[in-house]
Amino acid sequence: MNIIDDNKPNITPISSFGEFKLIDRLTKNFKCQNKQTIMGIGDDCAVLEEKDNFKLISTDMLVEGVHFDLSYTPLKHLGYKSIAVNISDICAMNGVPTQVTVSIAVSNRFSVEALDELYSGIKLACEKYNIDLVGGDTTSSLSGLVISVSILGQVKKSKITYRKGANVNDLLVVTGDLGAAYFGLQILQREKEIFKDNPTIQPDLTGHDYALQRQLRPEPPSKYLKILDELSIVPTSMIDISDGLSSEALHISKSSKVGVCLHEEKIPIDYTVMNMAAEFKLNPIAFALSGGEDYELLFTISQKDYDKIKKDPDFTIVGYVTDMSEGNSFIASDGSSHKLTAQGWDSTK
Amino acid sequence: MNIIDDNKPNITPISSFGEFKLIDRLTKNFKCQNKQTIMGIGDDCAVLEEKDNFKLISTDMLVEGVHFDLSYTPLKHLGYKSIAVNISDICAMNGVPTQVTVSIAVSNRFSVEALDELYSGIKLACEKYNIDLVGGDTTSSLSGLVISVSILGQVKKSKITYRKGANVNDLLVVTGDLGAAYFGLQILQREKEIFKDNPTIQPDLTGHDYALQRQLRPEPPSKYLKILDELSIVPTSMIDISDGLSSEALHISKSSKVGVCLHEEKIPIDYTVMNMAAEFKLNPIAFALSGGEDYELLFTISQKDYDKIKKDPDFTIVGYVTDMSEGNSFIASDGSSHKLTAQGWDSTK
Repeated sequence: MNIIDDNKPNITPISSFGEFKLIDRLTKNFKCQNKQTIMGIGDDCAVLEEKDNFKLISTDMLVEGVHFDLSYTPLKHLGYKSIAVNISDICAMNGVPTQVTVSIAVSNRFSVEALDELYSGIKLACEKYNIDLVGGDTTSSLSGLVISVSILGQVKKSKITYRKGANVNDLLVVTGDLGAAYFGLQILQREKEIFKDNPTIQPDLTGHDYALQRQLRPEPPSKYLKILDELSIVPTSMIDISDGLSSEALHISKSSKVGVCLHEEKIPIDYTVMNMAAEFKLNPIAFALSGGEDYELLFTISQKDYDKIKKDPDFTIVGYVTDMSEGNSFIASDGSSHKLTAQGWDSTK
Repeated sequence: MNIIDDNKPNITPISSFGEFKLIDRLTKNFKCQNKQTIMGIGDDCAVLEEKDNFKLISTDMLVEGVHFDLSYTPLKHLGYKSIAVNISDICAMNGVPTQVTVSIAVSNRFSVEALDELYSGIKLACEKYNIDLVGGDTTSSLSGLVISVSILGQVKKSKITYRKGANVNDLLVVTGDLGAAYFGLQILQREKEIFKDNPTIQPDLTGHDYALQRQLRPEPPSKYLKILDELSIVPTSMIDISDGLSSEALHISKSSKVGVCLHEEKIPIDYTVMNMAAEFKLNPIAFALSGGEDYELLFTISQKDYDKIKKDPDFTIVGYVTDMSEGNSFIASDGSSHKLTAQGWDSTK
């Protein structure tokens, strides 16, 4: 069967669709029929009714050559990361992870010992975050490694946080710092190119521990939820930062039917990233806005909660919520205002 | 990084391990810590505590070139099958499916319209079996199509059926008939070879509707659970037949710590498969024992339930449960007794 036949009418290449547009198209005709399904597709997790809690479920697939490069990714770190990125989705609903299933498709070029390494990283993450591995599938692949993780979690009904609850005048807050993971990726790719040109040169990764750890072995943002809980703050909306701050801010804007305004000078960047960005002559703000893989949280809080977090270095207020009619804006450090886009901001507007 | 370096000691090729042995090795050090996790790895589904019910979760991955061949598999059927095989795992616990997540990795040779076809099959199965699609991931792949489905379901606590409950003297029962799906695969592969040798010849699939449907668009065994419920039968153990009758019978034997005895002459084969096996000079019993993909149920019942099902053509008693010390045996049609193996039976013993 020809899957793409150029002579046929109505053939649309996938490359012409972004991921979100494609998911929207493929799933738009599905209707949820079970009354226990509170929320299907459209947030970081699906939400299912239980007695006192909501059950959360999410899933992520990591593909060799697309999401990871085994020439510089230790398999143990990859196993850890495959769990961490799924925990991050549970965190984005203000939930606690409980179980995972892990399926892998793997080609014969992998040894059993290589898979032991992968699973040792999975085990480390499961133990650290108190998650049970409860199932999976192991199958052959004709080419690379594919890892598919599904995660379950739970959240008290009173604490669940969707993307859709942001209100006008709420504050936009991010946890930790941004841009380091993408910066780590740049370093790894640079060293790989140097190695390809001259295999006798050893990779120079000194001084980049933080960025490399953020790229190769990220921690999910669980610890921030504990702090919010202690501060008695339930965010009005929340999302995890997997695709970059600007893209996630636009998701909150769309789901909550509000505008968002981000301030460049407020975006938290680690000082090592600042220094190295200067050395590489790159803009660290661009990494934060569109680099992705930081696995921090972006959330909104009511202004009445401002005093509770204003002195906590874990949280940074990066902007505020406006009426939808005001659109989504980015205030550059020089005070100029621009349109916020999924890729960053539009410097012409 | 060299993933397999032949100069290193302690390197074991994956090909030297079967799927079950590999899963055992990779997961043996994982311990379940959440008290709501009743059963982790080791049955058709994981089992999680809920108030009056158990929650079930299972996952399956389908890989192009390993599990399906797009030269003869319509994408709509593939979508349907990817849901059906997961439902089958929920059925094997005596449960009802409720939600699925579907992740796909897909290369650029697929069009958006091809994915529409895939999802139309997914939708058809979800609607027929009252399942909500609640999440997923869509990503690129460098080569073929990979589909990973995770399914949730539920079962009343009093009705859950594990692999481990079979008792000595129980009867071994299968639903429907066996071997047709593997026979369908043989037909498709034969026609593909003929087409490769002479592309002007049209494939001859007439008369094989049943076997082809069983291979390309199988139905999960949900209807049999309704019948068992109406008959007030809760099986003592159960498994779905995805890898062939002999392999599944051995799973029940191992989990229940019993012996099983299968009778060749009792194994239900559809008459069209019987006829075609004769034409192809193939043994249909071998298809039933080790062909796989039938997605019927193998279960055990107490002898006191015998009268309830003895006249129901949906169910066939294929053997009985013995003490573990008697081992697992296969009684051939000529009355001779053999050792039952995962591949069928050992004709030398």
